[in-house]
Amino acid sequence: MNKLAADYKVLGGKNVTERIFNFSAGPAMLPLPVLEEAQRDLLSLPGVGMSVLEISHRSKIFEDIIQAAEADLRTLLGISDDYHVLFLQGGASTQFSMVPMNLMEKGGKADYLVTGLWSKAAVKEAKKVGTVNIAASTEEENFVRIPKQEEFKLDPEAAYVHYTSNNTIYGTEWHRVPEVGNVPLVCDASSDILSRPMDVSKHALIYAGAQKNMGPAGVTVVIIRRDMVKDPPPDMGTMFAYKTHVEAKSLYNTPPVFAIYIVRLVCKWLLGLGGLEAMQKINEEKAKMLYDVIDSSDFYRGHAQPDSRSLMNVTFRLPNEELEKKFVKEATAAGLDGLKGHRSVGGLRASIYNAFPKEGVKALVDFMKEFENKNG
Amino acid sequence: MNKLAADYKVLGGKNVTERIFNFSAGPAMLPLPVLEEAQRDLLSLPGVGMSVLEISHRSKIFEDIIQAAEADLRTLLGISDDYHVLFLQGGASTQFSMVPMNLMEKGGKADYLVTGLWSKAAVKEAKKVGTVNIAASTEEENFVRIPKQEEFKLDPEAAYVHYTSNNTIYGTEWHRVPEVGNVPLVCDASSDILSRPMDVSKHALIYAGAQKNMGPAGVTVVIIRRDMVKDPPPDMGTMFAYKTHVEAKSLYNTPPVFAIYIVRLVCKWLLGLGGLEAMQKINEEKAKMLYDVIDSSDFYRGHAQPDSRSLMNVTFRLPNEELEKKFVKEATAAGLDGLKGHRSVGGLRASIYNAFPKEGVKALVDFMKEFENKNG
Repeated sequence: MNKLAADYKVLGGKNVTERIFNFSAGPAMLPLPVLEEAQRDLLSLPGVGMSVLEISHRSKIFEDIIQAAEADLRTLLGISDDYHVLFLQGGASTQFSMVPMNLMEKGGKADYLVTGLWSKAAVKEAKKVGTVNIAASTEEENFVRIPKQEEFKLDPEAAYVHYTSNNTIYGTEWHRVPEVGNVPLVCDASSDILSRPMDVSKHALIYAGAQKNMGPAGVTVVIIRRDMVKDPPPDMGTMFAYKTHVEAKSLYNTPPVFAIYIVRLVCKWLLGLGGLEAMQKINEEKAKMLYDVIDSSDFYRGHAQPDSRSLMNVTFRLPNEELEKKFVKEATAAGLDGLKGHRSVGGLRASIYNAFPKEGVKALVDFMKEFENKNG
Repeated sequence: MNKLAADYKVLGGKNVTERIFNFSAGPAMLPLPVLEEAQRDLLSLPGVGMSVLEISHRSKIFEDIIQAAEADLRTLLGISDDYHVLFLQGGASTQFSMVPMNLMEKGGKADYLVTGLWSKAAVKEAKKVGTVNIAASTEEENFVRIPKQEEFKLDPEAAYVHYTSNNTIYGTEWHRVPEVGNVPLVCDASSDILSRPMDVSKHALIYAGAQKNMGPAGVTVVIIRRDMVKDPPPDMGTMFAYKTHVEAKSLYNTPPVFAIYIVRLVCKWLLGLGGLEAMQKINEEKAKMLYDVIDSSDFYRGHAQPDSRSLMNVTFRLPNEELEKKFVKEATAAGLDGLKGHRSVGGLRASIYNAFPKEGVKALVDFMKEFENKNG
């Protein structure tokens, strides 16, 4: 066991051998208490006699789990009864298609605010259904910032406006909800949902793959306003219609039981922390520690413009690529894993989602300072 | 802990409190050694320092897991290099749409062999894409049997022939591969894959949700012959095209990492048992124990005709519904869970997938005999 992992063990006060700091962009670290509860009960849920990996999705036990997950999500995000909460499969990539298939008439039109590769992937799928208007994009600046409201070229007759609340690759994040008038607003919140409070009421639909802040890979949460649930065209596959899953309360077919169970444990953990205001405060503290190092140094250079900086993914460059490679290699050896940046930006990326411990950020800060001293 | 669970504990020689016998039609019981390994390593995979719930799907660790899962599936089922093996999401219900969307030209035609509600659900989705010819059906007999070869009315120009290898609701199973000439054969093997050897080479495409014999809910295996992988129509969503997942080796977007990990452990367990011939022998022994009770009694009455009987789901009736209710209630109290039959058949159903222990079948046999003695 390396030193940092040993520290973590001591800090956590737990008998966790070997756990390292995983800065990966997702799937990402889960809260230790969540993993511990899942481990304890893996052979048999208390009083049930079956593993959660084995229970029927039609059983009372699972009904309790999925209802608790939904109730806790409603509490955490302040989701009103005007919205359905769905647990689906297929990730945000499937939502890239389901959103236009369900919300746009075939041959209709929609506005997209483009802030990175994931927004562009969403545009690609929407274009298969109708006409896409790029209402704003910062692609020419390599997505270093979120577009300003006055840059928007919105179409008041668009079926909806789509945006990506956090951009994992570029390390940028929306710190306001885009103003789109009366047009329904759709948000891909995969990489920052549950990291801070969110004004759900300003949205018509929010979707998010779970694997950053909510749980493991394999479940996608969709929050959809009741008036957005329409009859699908007769030739649409049943599984691709939101209406199917609304009517069946996410149980049209076998849902990803275990992933939903973990979401339920993560929600419980968040409520125990004090909810999303408390989580946001912690996330702000963690991000500030890294941005402070970047801002006080000529050695490190942030990719995102300060007012667009993400609390989830901190992207930065070093003076040259050779040093960047050296940084990744030495950091990995020190138990700081997954820091290599995406090829679109290069350099380094520290993903510090909800469950990423402050001790891990502190370890990276110390490592960065030491690395600069040695190589600066 | 009830008596049967206590017996199980003793028989398994393990410190497993409370585990009951889960006869549910799926999700279903997993092998105890699989659950134990998953539990042991849930906080950190050996030498990795991260939970399998946290690792990146782009990491070397996960690459090893998914490649091992594929390699073991190839060994177990004798899958040649002519086939791709994919790990997808969305269950068989999503495959009901993906098969016609990918294999039929829009407005084309396909043959379906209808042996139960799941076949009918597949037909419903195919009709949204093209014309469906019901090449055989036993619906008029409430699906008590598998159709005979001489009953088939095949269309030699069909894009494919689709069948459901095992019918969970009715307790019937194909004990031969349908002969369909040169037309590509597609099989929904969700409920009996890996329960016995299968001649993959006679099929163009095989799909199966994992939650009966392969792993937990949340991953779907697709085995597709190379010549079946075609360019999708330009307006098809990227996630719905087999070609996407073939080209990306199931990593186009984040796959259900944990579910694939469990599939990998289940495959390892099956190989340790001696492969699918050995598994089939065990499954035949388990099923025979129950069918023998049914056949030697006037009190119990099997739903499926003997030559169509499933090794996975044993369906039977009692003299009246009142006794059936009483049976379910008393069985549940005795630690024999999930025995209530589907409403389409009524009565009882014992699902005894691969991981269901022989001791559990023995317990049900004893319970059935005792129940008949008391109530017959």
